[in-house]
Amino acid sequence: MSKPTASDVTRQVKVFVRSHLLGNEPGLDAGGEAPPPAIGTFSALGLAGWWLPTSVGGGGISLEDSVDIVAELAYGDAGVAFTLFISILGSSMVELYGSDELRRTHLGGLVARRGFCATLASERQAGSELMRTSTTAVRQGSDYVITGEKHFSTNAAFAEFLVCLAGAPDDPARYLALVIPRETPGVRIEKRWDLLGVRASGTYQVSLQGCRVPATSALRGNGLRVLEVGLNASRTLIAATAVGIARRIRDLCLEYARTKPLKGATLLTNPVFAAKIGQMEMQLEAMTTQCKAAARDWDGVVAGADAAAELLRRGTLKSALVAKMLCGQLGWQIASAGSEMFGGIGYTHDHLIGKLLRDMRHVSVIEGGDDVLRDLLFTRYVVPTVAA
Amino acid sequence: MSKPTASDVTRQVKVFVRSHLLGNEPGLDAGGEAPPPAIGTFSALGLAGWWLPTSVGGGGISLEDSVDIVAELAYGDAGVAFTLFISILGSSMVELYGSDELRRTHLGGLVARRGFCATLASERQAGSELMRTSTTAVRQGSDYVITGEKHFSTNAAFAEFLVCLAGAPDDPARYLALVIPRETPGVRIEKRWDLLGVRASGTYQVSLQGCRVPATSALRGNGLRVLEVGLNASRTLIAATAVGIARRIRDLCLEYARTKPLKGATLLTNPVFAAKIGQMEMQLEAMTTQCKAAARDWDGVVAGADAAAELLRRGTLKSALVAKMLCGQLGWQIASAGSEMFGGIGYTHDHLIGKLLRDMRHVSVIEGGDDVLRDLLFTRYVVPTVAA
Amino acid sequence: MSKPTASDVTRQVKVFVRSHLLGNEPGLDAGGEAPPPAIGTFSALGLAGWWLPTSVGGGGISLEDSVDIVAELAYGDAGVAFTLFISILGSSMVELYGSDELRRTHLGGLVARRGFCATLASERQAGSELMRTSTTAVRQGSDYVITGEKHFSTNAAFAEFLVCLAGAPDDPARYLALVIPRETPGVRIEKRWDLLGVRASGTYQVSLQGCRVPATSALRGNGLRVLEVGLNASRTLIAATAVGIARRIRDLCLEYARTKPLKGATLLTNPVFAAKIGQMEMQLEAMTTQCKAAARDWDGVVAGADAAAELLRRGTLKSALVAKMLCGQLGWQIASAGSEMFGGIGYTHDHLIGKLLRDMRHVSVIEGGDDVLRDLLFTRYVVPTVAA
Amino acid sequence: MSKPTASDVTRQVKVFVRSHLLGNEPGLDAGGEAPPPAIGTFSALGLAGWWLPTSVGGGGISLEDSVDIVAELAYGDAGVAFTLFISILGSSMVELYGSDELRRTHLGGLVARRGFCATLASERQAGSELMRTSTTAVRQGSDYVITGEKHFSTNAAFAEFLVCLAGAPDDPARYLALVIPRETPGVRIEKRWDLLGVRASGTYQVSLQGCRVPATSALRGNGLRVLEVGLNASRTLIAATAVGIARRIRDLCLEYARTKPLKGATLLTNPVFAAKIGQMEMQLEAMTTQCKAAARDWDGVVAGADAAAELLRRGTLKSALVAKMLCGQLGWQIASAGSEMFGGIGYTHDHLIGKLLRDMRHVSVIEGGDDVLRDLLFTRYVVPTVAA
Repeated sequence: MSKPTASDVTRQVKVFVRSHLLGNEPGLDAGGEAPPPAIGTFSALGLAGWWLPTSVGGGGISLEDSVDIVAELAYGDAGVAFTLFISILGSSMVELYGSDELRRTHLGGLVARRGFCATLASERQAGSELMRTSTTAVRQGSDYVITGEKHFSTNAAFAEFLVCLAGAPDDPARYLALVIPRETPGVRIEKRWDLLGVRASGTYQVSLQGCRVPATSALRGNGLRVLEVGLNASRTLIAATAVGIARRIRDLCLEYARTKPLKGATLLTNPVFAAKIGQMEMQLEAMTTQCKAAARDWDGVVAGADAAAELLRRGTLKSALVAKMLCGQLGWQIASAGSEMFGGIGYTHDHLIGKLLRDMRHVSVIEGGDDVLRDLLFTRYVVPTVAA
Repeated sequence: MSKPTASDVTRQVKVFVRSHLLGNEPGLDAGGEAPPPAIGTFSALGLAGWWLPTSVGGGGISLEDSVDIVAELAYGDAGVAFTLFISILGSSMVELYGSDELRRTHLGGLVARRGFCATLASERQAGSELMRTSTTAVRQGSDYVITGEKHFSTNAAFAEFLVCLAGAPDDPARYLALVIPRETPGVRIEKRWDLLGVRASGTYQVSLQGCRVPATSALRGNGLRVLEVGLNASRTLIAATAVGIARRIRDLCLEYARTKPLKGATLLTNPVFAAKIGQMEMQLEAMTTQCKAAARDWDGVVAGADAAAELLRRGTLKSALVAKMLCGQLGWQIASAGSEMFGGIGYTHDHLIGKLLRDMRHVSVIEGGDDVLRDLLFTRYVVPTVAA
Repeated sequence: MSKPTASDVTRQVKVFVRSHLLGNEPGLDAGGEAPPPAIGTFSALGLAGWWLPTSVGGGGISLEDSVDIVAELAYGDAGVAFTLFISILGSSMVELYGSDELRRTHLGGLVARRGFCATLASERQAGSELMRTSTTAVRQGSDYVITGEKHFSTNAAFAEFLVCLAGAPDDPARYLALVIPRETPGVRIEKRWDLLGVRASGTYQVSLQGCRVPATSALRGNGLRVLEVGLNASRTLIAATAVGIARRIRDLCLEYARTKPLKGATLLTNPVFAAKIGQMEMQLEAMTTQCKAAARDWDGVVAGADAAAELLRRGTLKSALVAKMLCGQLGWQIASAGSEMFGGIGYTHDHLIGKLLRDMRHVSVIEGGDDVLRDLLFTRYVVPTVAA
Repeated sequence: MSKPTASDVTRQVKVFVRSHLLGNEPGLDAGGEAPPPAIGTFSALGLAGWWLPTSVGGGGISLEDSVDIVAELAYGDAGVAFTLFISILGSSMVELYGSDELRRTHLGGLVARRGFCATLASERQAGSELMRTSTTAVRQGSDYVITGEKHFSTNAAFAEFLVCLAGAPDDPARYLALVIPRETPGVRIEKRWDLLGVRASGTYQVSLQGCRVPATSALRGNGLRVLEVGLNASRTLIAATAVGIARRIRDLCLEYARTKPLKGATLLTNPVFAAKIGQMEMQLEAMTTQCKAAARDWDGVVAGADAAAELLRRGTLKSALVAKMLCGQLGWQIASAGSEMFGGIGYTHDHLIGKLLRDMRHVSVIEGGDDVLRDLLFTRYVVPTVAA
């Protein structure tokens, strides 16, 4: 049976969103069991992990097409979207820097079991400065023994495997990214965080208490750099989340305006309303354009010769940083404007805007706040252009 | 026994906040029974209704001093603050435009029973355009019979009395504001709204089904204008709420920065952090200044000869509009910046910033969104300056 | 001899900018004779009209590559850039909607004489509302006689031909765009405007006093729509101007920061500076991405079957609107930040930032201010999505 | 003859503005001879130096009233306003920290000759960090000999005297502020700066080549601190300049809107226009409020017992910092919005908005840019509140 094309998948995703997410936002926002039943429904449709490589049986859909898919999902619910796509962070690292066996076992496993993976990176004292990580992977014979406390890890509780950043005193790279099967003894979910938004997703504090994995579980390359590479894909899709949320806000504004009476007509014919929506539409288009451009940038490098080495050389791509920053900033402007659009009713849980505002906040907070990303952009992409 | 001075009261309020609000924010944010126990504690201290006129036994504290009191309360919890001060909207109308008997009975009652009053103004189809109100007060002999549906009314469920805006087909003014004792037959609380923030307060949908009150319950003057007068006081204190919330955000930032490690030092010594807090501090000072100015403006008019007539003539004061708009806008900038300040932890309910962001949103939404207030400012204060 | 490729041209343009613009900004800003000598130098290099169709001997360079060329030119001087590219507005209309003869004569003439064309659209009372144009083209036998007053027309004084929007009472389309050779009797340059920026360019008030042209000078299609089509190309390149100006501002900031002492080091190592430049760099990248996307959008349609009809059907492209709005808005943020970056010296004519700020303002003002474009975006691209 | 009251002066200033500034803006903007003839006219009316102490024959007008006067002047021309009020920086230092003789001679001289004074503070390498000043005042017997290069000094060329900040190796304070009569040998005007705005004023680069003054010319107290005190008054009036410019912009918008046709009516009745002007009006009111508050703060301290010592203790007042920052920021928002309001004509020198935009930029640039002031606010007013 031939693989479904990207547009097949996008079409199915739209149907899924209409059937299983729209109208169920309050339930998804309640923060119940993770993952919520809708995730199971999505998996049952054979759509989960759409981007996984065809070599292990995955859908092989490009990051550019994934932007559309994620925007569609986030139109319905950003927490569902996040749960579904964030495995790309770990899976990209394994795909690019894992041995054939790791790829076959773990990425193949994701496909076969329609499962999730999680990344263990940030720590309490090492949020934006991962080189300060205190988790260690110590070599013992043919194994690594990993010990540490990881602060935020989405999907960890129900993941198939974890990709963990650790200091590696015995390795020349000093940092490694290692694959840890979820059921490895010593992996402990300490708590689930009670998030402000994206509440259909599950983010956990995880401790690693002497987790033993074969040395072959280590991905090639400096772990800090390997993580940077993976973040290009996930940051682009986080940015796409903002697109979906923002489209939803625009549509709620329009729906409200069609019937809201104002000065003898409806809000829809009010020039101030038109000006606000015109501005939103402009921002939305620019957000979409930048997400697609970042995704094409990634797809281009990945399709090139020696993609893994090239990406290791380049690390954080400018286009992905810019996508996340732009979408976070313009998305917040849209959500802020939206949250003033519905009068009193917009300040109640009878309306979705409160949820959408909280969901939007996520975009600028995870995987590097703007202060961190501005600094990174300056250091990596501006300073080198300045002659001494 | 002599009345406590404003600074006595402010001092007591600070102690109350420290003892009964700080640390209890999650409980206050849970949206349980309204009013929450903390309100009872405040009342038991004899502090409730601090601004009520001394002529009926009230504290007689000026609006200028009330700004400080409300900012202190909102530093602890904006919902508690809102519950406590919003009676000023109704009480000001009664004080200025009620008969001696209405004042004695109802304002005296508020003092005696440490109670609340509520205002019934907005309707589903008449949010920002109150002249479209469909509630009516029909004259029947020596009574008015009031019928209508009111959309948002804070404190209504547990108020002593309600001040209701109604169309009055029999009255030359065409609109009246009338005092309706809460226990009047036909007053029905339809539902409590589930608000996004200020969740310690209670806001209700209320229906009036043929509520009969003596004609003497009508306040003097066109009800639309009488309401405008009262809104000057409440808008100024809503603005003061933003000051309190913003101070709290600043202090949480500082507390976080003292210990947050960054590049070998703490965040507190980071110049980007200093720049953000310097900007916040500037905004906070401007917000405070404008609140105080609006309050002094009101106090000045109220202290003048024939204050009631003068206020009816002036209606909406520019200074109060500006205070609410400025504090709402700069407050939202502060809350937005704050919500990006705490990394991942700031996106969880383990941190207060999510609540403070939601509480802040209230300021720009109630008693006229900025679109409405910009239009009002233009129509009332700019157009008249333009020669034809 | 084979045509130079786009990258050849871009390389030559960079050399031209370095040799003839950088360092001569004060002279270019002085607003002397238009066009300034640098334009002649550019033409002598055979670079002028690089986008003109190869069928008439032009360079045939795509709009996507033109974005790079214009950004390079505007890095040197936005007025020079504007003078050089704005002919694309008229030439695109003639290329798409002119007869073979008009194309051969007038576009061929531009190539042969390295000349310019100008567009006559806006009028004193018809700036943003071109359907209110009072210029008329009246049919007299086989001619049109054109009469009217046109407010702003760049390059008109030294153009080879003018493309004029006029009401056409005798034509079913009611509006026509007509080619008027510059030397046609009755074309009068009333004045040159003294612009705030882009002062190397020349913009004129023009009157048409019974200008007679053959009826074949009329372009096919409703003139309002034909003009809309042409604006897609020019708006995209106006947006590209912002990119060039903004890059120049960034580079001036970096140059200044390298030597500016601050707290015992240089400004370049100051985190607040890094944050500002990081933000600028993000904005610059998003601006560039959107310009390229708009240009590719145009190039795609133009390369398609029946481009002229398709463009007439679509009129104003969303991507071009968004490019101009985004680049104007983010460009102004960059210019505003830049204008505070250089201390007192930045407030003098000893520094370029004042010129760059004035040049940047142009982007949001010409060919539709943001109010007009927001309204257009809403009307064309949002309203049709709203079910009645 | 009794002194004119503040309202007399304000009234006269309004007449002066109407008679001598309005309509003459292009000439004032041309940057001709400084001071321009209008300054002489103002002086001839006996209005110059209105704030100088009555003890030396000055007008004794408060800073609060000076805010109104400066706003009126800046409504006409910000450069004229700046020329007229900036002497307050030097005169305040002399008034508070000069000997009786210095006060009598120099402030008395200002009154008698309707003259100006200038301050010499910033240097090429010591703009925002005055403690890095390299100008020195070396004790020689009963004299100080002052040598250095001062970068920006307004009014210096035609001042009666200069107040100069210098390092004082022989003085325990290490820095001194000294009065140098303008005609002192060794004072040399190196050049007049060609400013972007406020072009009716004159700002100069000045060198001091062994200028000898009696030791009694030194003001009491650490020179850096003395300067800080004086800056409170001048920063407040710089903020007031923004108020005047912004009022002018608003009025130009209204004037334009009254006749500009739009969609079958005039712009004045357009809701988007109303919203913009409503927002401007809000900002203008907040700016005015903060200027007045800062001025009252200063007036209050100055009227108190031991004002000089109290001010030396407090240095930079928060209210003045906030006034300059707020007015600079909101003023720039108003000017930016204004510069998009007038279509193409607003991009020409036929309209005043270009000048007003350039004049407004001055506010955020002089006497400390916002980066410097944010840092100062943080260091002086936030850090001390943070327990170690």
